[in-house]
Amino acid sequence: MKGLYFKRTLTYREDLSLPKIDSNESLIKIVLAGICNTDREIIKGYKPGFQGVLGHEFVGEVVKSSNPSLIGQRVVGELNKGCGQCFYCKRQLSRHCLDRKIIGMSIDGCFAEYMAISTDLLHIIPKNLSNEKALFTEPLAAAISIIDTGHIKPTDHIAIVGDGRLAFMIAQVLALSGSNLTIVGRHQTKLDQFRSFAKTALEAECPTPQQFDIVIEATGSPSGMKNAMKLVRSFGEIIVKSTYEEALTLDFSEIVVREIKVRGSRCGPFEPALKLLAGNFIKFPKIDLFELHDYKRAFASKAFKSGFIISD
Amino acid sequence: MKGLYFKRTLTYREDLSLPKIDSNESLIKIVLAGICNTDREIIKGYKPGFQGVLGHEFVGEVVKSSNPSLIGQRVVGELNKGCGQCFYCKRQLSRHCLDRKIIGMSIDGCFAEYMAISTDLLHIIPKNLSNEKALFTEPLAAAISIIDTGHIKPTDHIAIVGDGRLAFMIAQVLALSGSNLTIVGRHQTKLDQFRSFAKTALEAECPTPQQFDIVIEATGSPSGMKNAMKLVRSFGEIIVKSTYEEALTLDFSEIVVREIKVRGSRCGPFEPALKLLAGNFIKFPKIDLFELHDYKRAFASKAFKSGFIISD
Repeated sequence: MKGLYFKRTLTYREDLSLPKIDSNESLIKIVLAGICNTDREIIKGYKPGFQGVLGHEFVGEVVKSSNPSLIGQRVVGELNKGCGQCFYCKRQLSRHCLDRKIIGMSIDGCFAEYMAISTDLLHIIPKNLSNEKALFTEPLAAAISIIDTGHIKPTDHIAIVGDGRLAFMIAQVLALSGSNLTIVGRHQTKLDQFRSFAKTALEAECPTPQQFDIVIEATGSPSGMKNAMKLVRSFGEIIVKSTYEEALTLDFSEIVVREIKVRGSRCGPFEPALKLLAGNFIKFPKIDLFELHDYKRAFASKAFKSGFIISD
Repeated sequence: MKGLYFKRTLTYREDLSLPKIDSNESLIKIVLAGICNTDREIIKGYKPGFQGVLGHEFVGEVVKSSNPSLIGQRVVGELNKGCGQCFYCKRQLSRHCLDRKIIGMSIDGCFAEYMAISTDLLHIIPKNLSNEKALFTEPLAAAISIIDTGHIKPTDHIAIVGDGRLAFMIAQVLALSGSNLTIVGRHQTKLDQFRSFAKTALEAECPTPQQFDIVIEATGSPSGMKNAMKLVRSFGEIIVKSTYEEALTLDFSEIVVREIKVRGSRCGPFEPALKLLAGNFIKFPKIDLFELHDYKRAFASKAFKSGFIISD
């Protein structure tokens, strides 16, 4: 079959074997696949030990399954497969299982015609939700993790530091809480995309230091955390979504004296994401889709989201 | 009157004026005063702009007061006097008021025969509580802030990094929750003091990385946070009590990927501290008391707590 195979570099191949499934798995015919920033990081060297098919955001159709009732269904799938037995797996935190397998990062992913996946990672796409919108399930779930792992109040004053794709998904989720939301970014053109549902401010003109109950750091750069510290009020909370290679140097005593809370947030739950998408609560610019052999253009695309159209 | 006056250096003086009180204040005759680590930091240059009487931990007797019913009562007092009007003061967070006055740090403190204090900062000492024990109210309140500002469960596995005075007060408070408590320190002799109510482990032999739900960082040094990161499990929480001059360099992506929560914790509530002390739930080694003119020996004391006996 056709696919994008990573082994130190990414290559387009037509000679990949059709995946075999075991007794707990399903075989998925991939329809659409989305490129995540993590995929770009892997190509740059973030997971040097990984070799296999890249990609973990997909919309597909179940061809074979350990659960026959799923055959023929349109599905999306989670990326972390836990051991099922450990402290984390028993608490619905399999994304932290120390023995977990990660689709497109430690086992074969979805940038191919077919993929094998553990059946319990699959979620059926509601009938009224288009494939293109369903492709946003995984990134939207990551934004939803912010409200799934902590309490955000409708009366909170919230700032999001960052004006990119991650910030955009987070902003839409938080706007649904009715909270007072300000996006602090560096690019007026990007900030304009948020105008219909949030206040915006250029970082350089940041008007109100130490006034926000909650600050979300979504810049993808260490400078984001320093700006978050300036914006958050004492006894407030910073939620960090960015990951980056560099270490970060901070005045930690400020965290103690001002009693600031900091929490990291990563992957999130799929079912609420599908509900918000099916309910038409999420806006998003059109995505930019390519064929698999055209992967270099797909990765270079500046669209809000790019990805692959693999089958009809 | 006699007192210890700070103006770049600390000096013993006998010519200080008796404090005047305004219509919301009380005049306190100081009986005992405790030396806090912050006092030592101020002498080293932590608050270069401050001049006045040092000290903020005291037990005293009310001589004059805006509330006449307090006259003759034994009292302890909080150190942060907020403006009463701002966001923080209206939410019982006056310790974060941007216009707050701090006893012994921005206004005259308690290392003197008398002190003026805002009457609403005073708390009456229960009859059955000795002056020496009551002197632990402020440091115990700081330990209690950990359970006042977040949920610690009796089923949590907790590690405290540090084996000093701060760690000792925190450990006693957390032991009262019935939780599974381990003290990770560098000094076997200090760790032995915790043996009757907690497990102990030498840092070098740290047995169980990433196994603790909650880790309290109470070392007073940047290395403590790095050890806390090793000990805390994914999706767990680090509570930081240490303050220090240096900046701290951390791999912040680990906080995101492992979804670790970090929160700073500082001063705490006095009433629960008085209840725990009066209920005889807190153990502590004897304190080492000196006269005011003997302040150099008092500051050099290696006792668990040192301080001053100022009047009978």
